[in-house]
Amino acid sequence: MPQGKPEHVPEDGLTTRQRRNRPLVIVHTGPGKGKSTAAFGLALRAWNQGWPIGVFQFVKSAKWRIGEEAALRALGEIGPPVVWHKMGEGWSWIKKAGTEEDHAADAREGWNQIKRDLAAETYRLLVLDEFTYPIKWGWIDIDDVTTTLTSRPGAQHVVITGRDAHPDLLALADLVTEMTKLKHPMDTGQKGQKGIEW
Amino acid sequence: MPQGKPEHVPEDGLTTRQRRNRPLVIVHTGPGKGKSTAAFGLALRAWNQGWPIGVFQFVKSAKWRIGEEAALRALGEIGPPVVWHKMGEGWSWIKKAGTEEDHAADAREGWNQIKRDLAAETYRLLVLDEFTYPIKWGWIDIDDVTTTLTSRPGAQHVVITGRDAHPDLLALADLVTEMTKLKHPMDTGQKGQKGIEW
Repeated sequence: MPQGKPEHVPEDGLTTRQRRNRPLVIVHTGPGKGKSTAAFGLALRAWNQGWPIGVFQFVKSAKWRIGEEAALRALGEIGPPVVWHKMGEGWSWIKKAGTEEDHAADAREGWNQIKRDLAAETYRLLVLDEFTYPIKWGWIDIDDVTTTLTSRPGAQHVVITGRDAHPDLLALADLVTEMTKLKHPMDTGQKGQKGIEW
Repeated sequence: MPQGKPEHVPEDGLTTRQRRNRPLVIVHTGPGKGKSTAAFGLALRAWNQGWPIGVFQFVKSAKWRIGEEAALRALGEIGPPVVWHKMGEGWSWIKKAGTEEDHAADAREGWNQIKRDLAAETYRLLVLDEFTYPIKWGWIDIDDVTTTLTSRPGAQHVVITGRDAHPDLLALADLVTEMTKLKHPMDTGQKGQKGIEW
């Protein structure tokens, strides 16, 4: 087999160039570390291409992504724009504050914003951080997600992170990586620390 | 069990704070994507902490990390220094150019630089990208690696990426994540593309 020639060529009517530059849906899932970190690493590549980047953070807590947010915002100042959305500031997947219905409404509002931005082609790379959870909890309809992603216009790459990705999302995705924990410092009595966990 | 309390507390003579801030050896291994990308994502957190960052790239080809390199170099201009080392420019793990002995010598020279920088505490975060390969090929002695890492002074975090991490390296590491491919666009005839693969 010649180097670089794919094993299977799909009968999708696309030329090799079209297929090569097809915008991707990428999912980082699994119980291990690095799902979001790798997504933000991808954003560095997008930034270097001059692509506008939209981050939609379905966050655990405000502090968890401060390093990435500060760095990407700084890059946005000197390169293509980086817009950082936090779904309902203070919204927590631990369901500590507010009612569940509040959180569901926040998540749906975030998803509606994503739909508007996809339709408007606002960004070239979208990072939907921890987006698997509101789908898992039934707050956002998976059929709406798959239809919206499948029919999105232009060349918008979408990276979705979080555990327990819905099977329909995995079926739709072009690239799925599972992060598995082999060993973790918290196993030996270590807690999170600055510069590493946030 | 109270929240945040680790299940096992090791008898290492350290206080909780000392253990908490213990510098880490982190390994990203496995056949999936995201090993290096997540390492560079970690560098964003380090940057935001004001930590000097050293990247030692045991590279496949010059183009593969250009996005991360450009973005981190740009961040290094406006924040803590980011120093990017490429082992023997043009050095390739595919062993295309040069003799194997040339490559081994390049890799060893890179490792010697890392040892000097660890001894001098030049950086607070070191990314040893694809460092598992020269170990695997016997170019760099694993005992030298484990001894050097174990006895490194100060609070230097070290992230090592690459497939087939040596068992001794895994045993030494504080945090090991395995990236597994569940699905890849090249399976369906797609090749790498800018902004995503580099």
